[in-house]
Amino acid sequence: HVRSATFKERRRLAIVLVGLPARGKTFVSAKLSKYLRWLGHDTKHFNVGKYRRRFHGCAQGADFFDPNNAAGVEAREQVARMACLDMLQWMEAGGQIGIYDATNSTFARRDMLVQLCEGNCKVIFLETICLDKGQILRNVRDKVARSPDYASRNDLHEGPGAEDLDAGVADFLRRIVNYEASYQPVGGGTYAVEAGGEQHVSYIKLIDNGLGEGQVQVNRITGYLPARIVFYLINSHMRPRAVFLARHGESEFNAHGRIGGDTGLTKNGKKFAKVLADFVHERVHEEPCSVWTSTMRRATQSARYLDDYPQVQWRALDEIDAGVCDGMTYLEIKQTMKGEWNAREQDKLRYRYPRGESYLDVIQRLEPVLIELERQRAPVVVIAHQAVLRALYAYFMDKPLEQIPHLEVPLHSVVELQPNPYGIQETFHQLMDP
Amino acid sequence: HVRSATFKERRRLAIVLVGLPARGKTFVSAKLSKYLRWLGHDTKHFNVGKYRRRFHGCAQGADFFDPNNAAGVEAREQVARMACLDMLQWMEAGGQIGIYDATNSTFARRDMLVQLCEGNCKVIFLETICLDKGQILRNVRDKVARSPDYASRNDLHEGPGAEDLDAGVADFLRRIVNYEASYQPVGGGTYAVEAGGEQHVSYIKLIDNGLGEGQVQVNRITGYLPARIVFYLINSHMRPRAVFLARHGESEFNAHGRIGGDTGLTKNGKKFAKVLADFVHERVHEEPCSVWTSTMRRATQSARYLDDYPQVQWRALDEIDAGVCDGMTYLEIKQTMKGEWNAREQDKLRYRYPRGESYLDVIQRLEPVLIELERQRAPVVVIAHQAVLRALYAYFMDKPLEQIPHLEVPLHSVVELQPNPYGIQETFHQLMDP
Ligand SMILES: Nc1ncnc2c1ncn2[C@@H]1O[C@H](COP(=O)(O)OP(=O)(O)OP(=O)(O)O)[C@@H](O)[C@H]1O
Ligand SMILES: Nc1ncnc2c1ncn2[C@@H]1O[C@H](COP(=O)(O)OP(=O)(O)OP(=O)(O)O)[C@@H](O)[C@H]1O
Ligand SMILES: [Mg+2]
Ligand SMILES: [Mg+2]
Repeated sequence: HVRSATFKERRRLAIVLVGLPARGKTFVSAKLSKYLRWLGHDTKHFNVGKYRRRFHGCAQGADFFDPNNAAGVEAREQVARMACLDMLQWMEAGGQIGIYDATNSTFARRDMLVQLCEGNCKVIFLETICLDKGQILRNVRDKVARSPDYASRNDLHEGPGAEDLDAGVADFLRRIVNYEASYQPVGGGTYAVEAGGEQHVSYIKLIDNGLGEGQVQVNRITGYLPARIVFYLINSHMRPRAVFLARHGESEFNAHGRIGGDTGLTKNGKKFAKVLADFVHERVHEEPCSVWTSTMRRATQSARYLDDYPQVQWRALDEIDAGVCDGMTYLEIKQTMKGEWNAREQDKLRYRYPRGESYLDVIQRLEPVLIELERQRAPVVVIAHQAVLRALYAYFMDKPLEQIPHLEVPLHSVVELQPNPYGIQETFHQLMDP
Repeated sequence: HVRSATFKERRRLAIVLVGLPARGKTFVSAKLSKYLRWLGHDTKHFNVGKYRRRFHGCAQGADFFDPNNAAGVEAREQVARMACLDMLQWMEAGGQIGIYDATNSTFARRDMLVQLCEGNCKVIFLETICLDKGQILRNVRDKVARSPDYASRNDLHEGPGAEDLDAGVADFLRRIVNYEASYQPVGGGTYAVEAGGEQHVSYIKLIDNGLGEGQVQVNRITGYLPARIVFYLINSHMRPRAVFLARHGESEFNAHGRIGGDTGLTKNGKKFAKVLADFVHERVHEEPCSVWTSTMRRATQSARYLDDYPQVQWRALDEIDAGVCDGMTYLEIKQTMKGEWNAREQDKLRYRYPRGESYLDVIQRLEPVLIELERQRAPVVVIAHQAVLRALYAYFMDKPLEQIPHLEVPLHSVVELQPNPYGIQETFHQLMDP
């Protein structure tokens, strides 16, 4: 018998990125893979650029990417094939979703990949298109300042000097021109008509999605997991804004070492509510901002002095349900329910309290909250509980599921998450003693 | 403060169907509107065919639909405008999602609708395309046998005589030819290039989706609700197969009039487990079939003799959580918690037990189960609980949310739901005394 909070689709899937350089392919790959991992799918990101650097070194100028440079073309094709075979081997060994991250900007290259994957996994192309010239230039500057491809030149100086940066940007723009010359968007064109074109491939196109006002096109999308991926991508954006994950103030049960319950704040906890409000007011100023809590008293009472912001109470943010153990101390559980205690020690992620929940159950019910967090444009302050915050934090910081039950989320603390173009910056604030 | 299991998008939306006759537009409209209503969105289906029949009578032959028949064209345009204005008026009065169901097969007609909706609501086109000729012919036969457009002719005899049926089918096929002559699929073509074409409209295309092996295309889809709709449509199919909604056998708590708990089956309940297994075995024969239960003992024990089928335990199928009232009798609640009792009497749908759930919470957590039920191709036997089954039944039979807490779901009963081309046929089986 399967014990499952939901069905998991187990079929293998290759998500093959397509797009010119500096269009956010690696950014989207990383984001999607952390989401899929968090949902429990074994997912791996294969960045072909890394293979290229490993085998051909970093300091390749734009010429290497010139479609008329036969040696460059062959070297790049070889690397692309190697990365794909690695992905297939990883799937053979049990991996489920491979994210194959490269420009893949020609029909011929994509056709090669389709051939390699044939019979091994389903292929979905994910094309990132960016029509906003200003955005592209910002991306290029940003990339050059950080990319290992330009590091060797940058490293000669203390940091990248302005001159090197400009030279790097110019080189990168030439690289883009080389790709543009042969770029064939997925699915449309008259190229490869004799081969039946690409009308029959499955694809998702993200168009000017960077600023969160873009649009999505899909073709031949079927099945649960592909539909989920589309849903997630439609609701994501990369406009930066902070998320604050705050634990509630000390409750009566906290003070007595009891788990669960729905007690109110202690005097100490009430003090935290004030401190938290001061902290948030100082950070978010006048911006629109919303406060999300669970429906539990210790959470809503902690939000008490944040009543100048719109507040939402989510049942999905309620603490993990300890079932028959609700209200007990850990010592009591250990002494009176030895079997349960041991089962929990052995597999804290999957262990489900009798009549209660497991961490995996919590992840499941948090998914809509997470989609809604991704959708928001303004800062959000989430005031919730240990298990719930562990699960949310693991999503944002891409921590393996197995670590979730062991992450530190002390009372009276706030984690500030600030997305940036290359990931998420976290700052831990212990506002008061736990 | 908003108390919400999830965010609800409140923006107005018109979903405008597009497609030749007998492509399942009305079928998809009805299905989508029942889903959206179940999620709590005020949704209304505007069937332009009904307006046409109301204003121009039923017995219009194919000539009425001839694009060269000026009177017919004008009459149909007038009716289309009227239905759209009705929809906008309904939105003005508080309605959220209008489903505007007509062929809308020309750019000009769709452009008229876009103009009318401008500033009032967002428009998404939903085009149903069916390339399978056999399917179309089956649909036409089926429609003619039931459609009010052919009823007057059919009614002359006892039932539709074979001759009338053939004449009706021939007439309907001529009607289709008339539409085909001027059909312009959404989004592509060279028509109306001067007007900017239709590349900028939001659309969803369902292609050969009827048999559940088709595909979906979308363009310019953004936002939570549109993403949800795409997700639902991708996972739906219309291949008929039964769903059985069974309540569990009598539990110890049932026998003592106590709510909630996690007690096992009584002797009587165990007898039901056998009777249920016999019933299911008789109905589903050798077909592949799966058995879904909650994680509660009374449900899993009721599935005991169905162990020749794959079984899945869903926590999302667990009974509504009665929170602090779990284990009490209704009399005890009424006597000791008068305030709670009254609050529940007043609004049984939204009332949330202290530390427990409301019916709306249950609907929320059932949504993934429902998507999974829609996706299944083989029969499914769901063995669950009163509140949960009420919510699932309401989805399938399109009952208003307000009725959910009052639907009858006795112990030891099974509702058999068999989808057919025009909805769902239900059969109630009381296998044993409750
Ligand atoms: N959808 C998007 N559209 C445009 N820019 C984006 C998008 N998503 C992320 N970005 C930004 O694009 C920049 C470059 O991103 P990234 O390195 O992921 O590009 P890439 O397509 O992988 O480039 P390369 O082909 O050189 O590997 C980052 O600053 C990132 O914030
Ligand atoms: N996606 C689909 N593709 C093809 N047929 C479908 C689809 N969905 C439903 N059907 C079937 O199509 C038949 C006709 O459906 P329906 O009456 O909804 O068509 P319609 O497009 O509304 O036609 P009309 O334009 O005459 O109103 C039904 O038998 C239904 O089962
Ligand atoms: Mg990259
Ligand atoms: Mg119809």
